[in-house]
Amino acid sequence: MGLFRSAGKVYKPAADVNLGPDSKESYLHANVKAPRVAGLLVKIFVWILESRIFGPMVVYILKKDNLIHKLVSFAVIQEPPLFTNTHNWEDIAEQNVTLVKHELSPAERVQEVMDCLPPSLESTLSDPDSSFKRWTVRDFSRAYRSGETTPLAVAKRFLAAAKESTDLQMAFFINYNARDILRQAQESTLRYKRGAPISVMDGVLVAIKDEIDCLPYPTTGGTKWLHKVRPCTDDARCVEQLRSCGAIFVGKTNMHELGAGTSGINPHYGSTRNPYDINRVSGGSSSGSAAVVCAGLCPVALGVDGGGSVRMPAALCGVVGFKPTSGRLSNSGVLPLNWTVGMPGILAATVEDALIVYAAISGNLPSQRASLQTELNIPLLTSTQSITNIKLAKYGEWFNDCTSEIRDCCDQALHMLYKHYGWKTVAVTVPDIEEMRLAHYITIGSECTASLAPHLKKLNFGEIGWDARVALRVYGSFSSKDYLNAQRIRNRQMYFHKKIFETADVIVTPTTGVTAYPLLSDALTSGELDYINGAALVRFSIAGNFLGLPTITVKVGYDRGGMPIGLQFIGKPWSEATLLHLAFAMEALCIGSYKKPQVFYDLLKKE
Amino acid sequence: MGLFRSAGKVYKPAADVNLGPDSKESYLHANVKAPRVAGLLVKIFVWILESRIFGPMVVYILKKDNLIHKLVSFAVIQEPPLFTNTHNWEDIAEQNVTLVKHELSPAERVQEVMDCLPPSLESTLSDPDSSFKRWTVRDFSRAYRSGETTPLAVAKRFLAAAKESTDLQMAFFINYNARDILRQAQESTLRYKRGAPISVMDGVLVAIKDEIDCLPYPTTGGTKWLHKVRPCTDDARCVEQLRSCGAIFVGKTNMHELGAGTSGINPHYGSTRNPYDINRVSGGSSSGSAAVVCAGLCPVALGVDGGGSVRMPAALCGVVGFKPTSGRLSNSGVLPLNWTVGMPGILAATVEDALIVYAAISGNLPSQRASLQTELNIPLLTSTQSITNIKLAKYGEWFNDCTSEIRDCCDQALHMLYKHYGWKTVAVTVPDIEEMRLAHYITIGSECTASLAPHLKKLNFGEIGWDARVALRVYGSFSSKDYLNAQRIRNRQMYFHKKIFETADVIVTPTTGVTAYPLLSDALTSGELDYINGAALVRFSIAGNFLGLPTITVKVGYDRGGMPIGLQFIGKPWSEATLLHLAFAMEALCIGSYKKPQVFYDLLKKE
Repeated sequence: MGLFRSAGKVYKPAADVNLGPDSKESYLHANVKAPRVAGLLVKIFVWILESRIFGPMVVYILKKDNLIHKLVSFAVIQEPPLFTNTHNWEDIAEQNVTLVKHELSPAERVQEVMDCLPPSLESTLSDPDSSFKRWTVRDFSRAYRSGETTPLAVAKRFLAAAKESTDLQMAFFINYNARDILRQAQESTLRYKRGAPISVMDGVLVAIKDEIDCLPYPTTGGTKWLHKVRPCTDDARCVEQLRSCGAIFVGKTNMHELGAGTSGINPHYGSTRNPYDINRVSGGSSSGSAAVVCAGLCPVALGVDGGGSVRMPAALCGVVGFKPTSGRLSNSGVLPLNWTVGMPGILAATVEDALIVYAAISGNLPSQRASLQTELNIPLLTSTQSITNIKLAKYGEWFNDCTSEIRDCCDQALHMLYKHYGWKTVAVTVPDIEEMRLAHYITIGSECTASLAPHLKKLNFGEIGWDARVALRVYGSFSSKDYLNAQRIRNRQMYFHKKIFETADVIVTPTTGVTAYPLLSDALTSGELDYINGAALVRFSIAGNFLGLPTITVKVGYDRGGMPIGLQFIGKPWSEATLLHLAFAMEALCIGSYKKPQVFYDLLKKE
Repeated sequence: MGLFRSAGKVYKPAADVNLGPDSKESYLHANVKAPRVAGLLVKIFVWILESRIFGPMVVYILKKDNLIHKLVSFAVIQEPPLFTNTHNWEDIAEQNVTLVKHELSPAERVQEVMDCLPPSLESTLSDPDSSFKRWTVRDFSRAYRSGETTPLAVAKRFLAAAKESTDLQMAFFINYNARDILRQAQESTLRYKRGAPISVMDGVLVAIKDEIDCLPYPTTGGTKWLHKVRPCTDDARCVEQLRSCGAIFVGKTNMHELGAGTSGINPHYGSTRNPYDINRVSGGSSSGSAAVVCAGLCPVALGVDGGGSVRMPAALCGVVGFKPTSGRLSNSGVLPLNWTVGMPGILAATVEDALIVYAAISGNLPSQRASLQTELNIPLLTSTQSITNIKLAKYGEWFNDCTSEIRDCCDQALHMLYKHYGWKTVAVTVPDIEEMRLAHYITIGSECTASLAPHLKKLNFGEIGWDARVALRVYGSFSSKDYLNAQRIRNRQMYFHKKIFETADVIVTPTTGVTAYPLLSDALTSGELDYINGAALVRFSIAGNFLGLPTITVKVGYDRGGMPIGLQFIGKPWSEATLLHLAFAMEALCIGSYKKPQVFYDLLKKE
């Protein structure tokens, strides 16, 4: 019975790891060993995976080949497990920041932000040199107040556009209810008629990922069954807060089934297509929320980000994706699929709009979070030069682990930041990136399984898409030992990042390793297993979730195929102000060259 | 592929559960479905369990039959997971307590305790009506100071007795080194000759469970291999503290292999026999530490308690077993087999001796525990009446889930407490006892697997005992989902116990559901699988570990076979003073009727 097997990695004590540019820590490229599979092959693979005898063997081989055994399961890690992504770092003093009291109402908070916003920004957005213009929240609000249009008229245009997108098989929505939309729009229109809009958000269209409760819709999580076992009985906290600002909810956006993938291919509700190229994926899992903002159907949408699920589709669709610090927003009413890594995130056409929504949905958290800092820090934007001496940490080998077009574009963006604002890039080493990706994968998979187990027990697996079945099978294979070791890695990473933030204000990376890739027809009904593109998509996302750090992605250019490229800033805990400031600065340098998507609806166009 | 399986238990929200005597919560008797197996059958069972094909199936059936699936894996539990047994309950003010500053040296702390101890207690212990007398730490100290005997003479007697016990196959020790013992004894003798003993512990013999580092011995954990991959390079913190008081370490006591069982049957180092009846088990896993104290080889010993492993053998061997609040003692130098449930515990002939050792090894904890209360509270014992209005919580159905002899004896003990001190018993309901046992089992098993995985990978399984192989196989079968749900149950139980402690000072239970049962010869080399006795042994132990509560067991009588019966007090966090006070009071009422074990060595007997 001698079981002489290969041993696991022996991790150096965290304190002994060199985080400087001269570190001997080597960068491990994702060692994904699984070819792209779609169509019938996916189904055969699922049958094998679900068989009693061969299934566990195949899972074992998958985990071994993908280094989960070596880097996690059988690794020797000194640090004790850390089971959350909240942290007790000291509050970081931010420069030139206005604090908005969190006990204000959402509408009051939004108003405070409006008072901070510089008028100059408006002119930047309507740059006459730019042929393409996205309408912002302020544009809608101005048009409503001036009587140029009404929320009802915009809602009707929305419905026509949504129908047209359906004909194009864009698969933006899982659910939208014309009657409910028109009712909300009528009420908003009346408020404007009475001269009493609630806030700048009044009458603004907002789409919600179908992982967040929003009445009157069920919350499917992209499945055919979850809403049957878990009825939606109330608005999620973030939806409730936006509703109290007068926002109009236009339906539930499509998503990767259970959030268990990054392509946005959903066999039940259609695969969300990228508005920049309808033959390419939108990214996921908040695919619909990114795509509707990209296509102009609404200026802002909510997503959920458990492993980059807001930032990845935002980058692929060329919009802003913003995931604040874990604990900053309420998870109440969000499907509890992965509670220590997931939280709501904001998708918006502009940084300004992300900021407005952020102001609306922050604060007023339930009492159990009282120990956390819950003040909302809003940056003053009178001058982007007002924050000086910003240091951007860059880990070269990681930063460059993407297509050459992404690398060049992101490098160019950093160069622009230096040229215009004098912000310097400092070289650092972020150790164990791939190890963190695997540890996060074990964590998100384990939490998803624990959440769904009682339901899955009773479920007919025929109701689940093929690729989600693969995910569930792998998720369910993680042992308690895997989970515990993954949390040890979390503890190390928390330590590493804390140390790195002592030398820099933010960490800067591309948002994704690849741009939107082709949506192949063989994947439409079966889904596809494409773990190589999947790993490239999530490569830069993990710290935001696993360590709860605030992150934002801004579009900084396009590849030769016209697909958007995102640059990501990863901030210190609670440093949303700095992060938004950087995003504004970056956007201001790029927005003039933004291109119009292939599929785009202009809801404020003058007839 | 329709997988319609039976669903798991749906737990009521914790706040809705009635904890009063009129609760509708039903008491679930342990539903252990596994016959006692020993000899060849164990080996066959291990072969099946370790086979690639049948093993997982058998484990699945075991977990299903034993309700792990229903009560944990597939249960619906609202509460979030709680991953530790430390707590943020408010400090509880204790009555009539002297606080000993934890920054004193161990010897100074011991001296403070000595100053508190009443002289009256001494006379209680040497009750002339009692035919049997155990020598206490104070007895040894007095005999050394008076020159009646010397540590060297006692050490020599110890060595002769230890040899005799080996001839009797008592299997008390895994390792003891005569030269090292005599060297320590000589040094202590010199100190007494110079009139400068370090403390009352100087020259007192102390045995250490072989799960705690103690130079010059390896730390085997009851295995044949662990010390080879993890060399012992220093004393554990608690050993170091006792050493600084002048204690003489007499070797490493036997234990259940890896602490993975409760009988004390060890195939490598022999099965520790019960000094009250050498044909019965000693209980485990700190079997040797309990047995050597019982047999008079030393007044005190250290064990480790991860699931009752100090209290169970203490009860079965009729000695005091004391496990303080989690976080009160340092785990440094203790094998990290189960770090969120295990900690050192004290085995002693009397409560007084447990208190003295407790004083020596508390305090001076490393800085990471600074946020916890680390003052050592020492009870003033001038009068047991000094604590009035003590309320003892009793959950009748649980309390009575033991043999009728244990029940009657423990009830009688409660009656005596009422009669002599006026302490009342209040009826409560502690919900989900069996659920907590399973959740704890998953936790301890998962942590053990995570700790050992890197070693097990490289190990020849032939070096592991058969019953430990079964345990490791089951431990390794727990999924991350099982672990997460177990921690949800921990959170509920933390809440329940906090609530119960608002109505009572301690919870009182028998220490075990059965007394020492026969040690059958078929188990000696193969070990035995006796999960029914195992479940009965741990039935009352779990809260102490899973919730980190302080607990103590005191002998209150004997069954018809002459086997000791223990009563257990479970206290509020940090309420060791109250707990020791109750134990003193209980002991004072029972000590007169204590019986001499079958195997007993009188190390202070006058020639």
